Amino acid sequence: MRTRPLKVALLGCGVVGSEVARIMTTHADDLAARIGAPVELAGVAVRRPAKVRAGIDPALVTTDATALVKRGDIDVVVEVIGGIEPARTLIATAFEHGASVVSANKALLAQDGAALHAAAGEHGRDLYYEAAVAGAIPLIRPLRESLAGDKVNRVLGIVNGTTNFILDKMDSTGAGYQEALDEATALGYAEADPTADVEGFDAAAKAAILAGIAFHTRVRLDDVYREGMTEVTAADFASAKEMGCTIKLLAICERAADGASVTARVHPAMIPLSHPLASVRGAYNAVFVESDAAGQLMFYGPGAGGSPTASAVLGDLVAVCRNRLNGTTGPGESAYAALPVSPMGDVVTRYHISLDVADKPGVLAQVATVFAEHGVSIDTVRQQGKDGEASLVVVTHRASDAALTGTVEALRSLDTVRGVASIMRVEGE
Amino acid sequence: MRTRPLKVALLGCGVVGSEVARIMTTHADDLAARIGAPVELAGVAVRRPAKVRAGIDPALVTTDATALVKRGDIDVVVEVIGGIEPARTLIATAFEHGASVVSANKALLAQDGAALHAAAGEHGRDLYYEAAVAGAIPLIRPLRESLAGDKVNRVLGIVNGTTNFILDKMDSTGAGYQEALDEATALGYAEADPTADVEGFDAAAKAAILAGIAFHTRVRLDDVYREGMTEVTAADFASAKEMGCTIKLLAICERAADGASVTARVHPAMIPLSHPLASVRGAYNAVFVESDAAGQLMFYGPGAGGSPTASAVLGDLVAVCRNRLNGTTGPGESAYAALPVSPMGDVVTRYHISLDVADKPGVLAQVATVFAEHGVSIDTVRQQGKDGEASLVVVTHRASDAALTGTVEALRSLDTVRGVASIMRVEGE
Repeated sequence: MRTRPLKVALLGCGVVGSEVARIMTTHADDLAARIGAPVELAGVAVRRPAKVRAGIDPALVTTDATALVKRGDIDVVVEVIGGIEPARTLIATAFEHGASVVSANKALLAQDGAALHAAAGEHGRDLYYEAAVAGAIPLIRPLRESLAGDKVNRVLGIVNGTTNFILDKMDSTGAGYQEALDEATALGYAEADPTADVEGFDAAAKAAILAGIAFHTRVRLDDVYREGMTEVTAADFASAKEMGCTIKLLAICERAADGASVTARVHPAMIPLSHPLASVRGAYNAVFVESDAAGQLMFYGPGAGGSPTASAVLGDLVAVCRNRLNGTTGPGESAYAALPVSPMGDVVTRYHISLDVADKPGVLAQVATVFAEHGVSIDTVRQQGKDGEASLVVVTHRASDAALTGTVEALRSLDTVRGVASIMRVEGE
Repeated sequence: MRTRPLKVALLGCGVVGSEVARIMTTHADDLAARIGAPVELAGVAVRRPAKVRAGIDPALVTTDATALVKRGDIDVVVEVIGGIEPARTLIATAFEHGASVVSANKALLAQDGAALHAAAGEHGRDLYYEAAVAGAIPLIRPLRESLAGDKVNRVLGIVNGTTNFILDKMDSTGAGYQEALDEATALGYAEADPTADVEGFDAAAKAAILAGIAFHTRVRLDDVYREGMTEVTAADFASAKEMGCTIKLLAICERAADGASVTARVHPAMIPLSHPLASVRGAYNAVFVESDAAGQLMFYGPGAGGSPTASAVLGDLVAVCRNRLNGTTGPGESAYAALPVSPMGDVVTRYHISLDVADKPGVLAQVATVFAEHGVSIDTVRQQGKDGEASLVVVTHRASDAALTGTVEALRSLDTVRGVASIMRVEGE
């Protein structure tokens, strides 16, 4: 074993960073044996240096992250600050000064992954980011390496623990969205400002990263259709139950049937209770991967939290250190397929639509005609009437999002349709 | 991209080998893009050359596997023959002649993994074998790389599809073992001689491989306690249901509570219906991994079959080819921890014991005394009497296998105990 240690600079020492530092210390012998050389924490860049950090030598703590990554003797920079800046500039600076980078930064990777990969390649360094998607769950590496000889057709997953906690709570207790969110906040599963989670921004960043790797194609954050889950109601869950379904916020990356394009989207959807994703509880994450040869695979585990995320960071750290000792790098960006990313209108799926309609003869015929005119085939219809008002629940066969949107517009213009109570996609069948 | 192709020798062209050859041809462009150089099928060694093999150039087919691996221009040997010999000698010869090896051979890896890794290391070549455990499911790579910075404490899995199909059938239809086996055979899920599957030999080989990687310790096939599932009865399933459980054949690799030793075992066990492994249906496989930092992870997918196994083989092929182009090798054997493997008697778990007893007062007191004398604490007891005979179902708290064995021996010697109808371990709680 090499005795000269590899030097690691840690950027950020919050929930994840402090766990990374702790495990680097407590598991130092194991890490050295697995890497083939000791790893040494050479510096820790933080915003608040006065904060007491158990187990971290105060002499290592600095507020000058830029000086730390520019030192020139750093082998690996671990970036767990999050957000776009200063993380982006620090990573670019790290490559320029000869370090490889391990990052947990989904927002940055989703927005600037291509440029960061290019910078890593230019300097012959590694950029690893298993922790950026689904916390501890090995997902980037299996997609990028284990399935490298296969053709992935679909990635379908629960990649945000906060929203899964909320939806699971609504499902199991009948609570409304606000009540479930309040509980998630009280228990620390939701942040004070939950927008990034509940509006699907976090999941959309992960979808962009997963789609890019799965389809060997650049998928930008802007390419991902995004719909949050703040408008999911207790009534939606009741409807889902009647269909033998539950509701999850899903990230879905698909190759089109002809293989010539891909789509990526995040939205709430009904999935059958028999689908393995339906039983993913609480803040857990799980991702289904469908490929030509392997068939259906699922990866399940904690999608967030300090320790789980640190596990993923440290797995990458070991890999990057091994590469460094071998004078090589792991697989970089693979975007050779360069498939076009189709807009949401091209996505084909099934729909569950609840309409408030006038309770009089002929309404169903009118509604059915609108669906037929837009080429959307109806699977089932359920009518319920009370006091001159009635509701109509329509479940369609597979149709494009554009056709469905056209149908809904036309339905809204019917005199007999008082309102469209909800539209929800049905996935996983 | 390099234009000179990497040359692949395929040993075996059965269900898996023919799929590997097919995908290498149909996905040639994708593989080349992902590797950075084309890969060429340079030869296919088979036993029956006369058999027609669609899509394989007959000029590549040979019965002389030894000559093929000795050619000297082979970059990667893919071994999908199975069994110990001639596979072992061919792999050794491949290393001697400069090739890296991708293998799907669990029996060989479990028996001679250390020697094969040593040979690979001596010649600076790779030995990859993702396909040897749980077919298409990425498991070896996540354990060996993604969790390389974590400490794995337990691997608990369904790693044999044949027995899971049989047990699932027994559970869902109330069928007996023989009836369910006959159906598995008729549908092609069980071989004509099902011994390797139903007696747990196949799962034990996989447990040895998984334990070795998870604990960075050599675990030989002989170190794995093995109990088949041929004696599981419909009555056992009825008992399991009463406990809110089902029965699965599990491979369990555990680190002892003090961290100083490990165990590996394969046997049927009850697991709660709420455990994710309980809902693994048909011939699917799934493996739970518990680690210090990541917590609980699960990997799920098809555990066998030509295409899924080929997916795993090709993932390894891409990795090995990339390493070759980079002039490096991936992680080799990691056995530095060298923990002792404890015997089955040291395993601590819970037990479900059915006793046939005389239906008279005092029997329960006698039985309870025997448990107490052996230090096995009882969780619940259920008595059922009819016609002078009675049954007693005891579920214990956690106790060592040695203590349980002593308890059962003593119970058998009681006059009032007519027989021990079944003993089953309870896992996953």
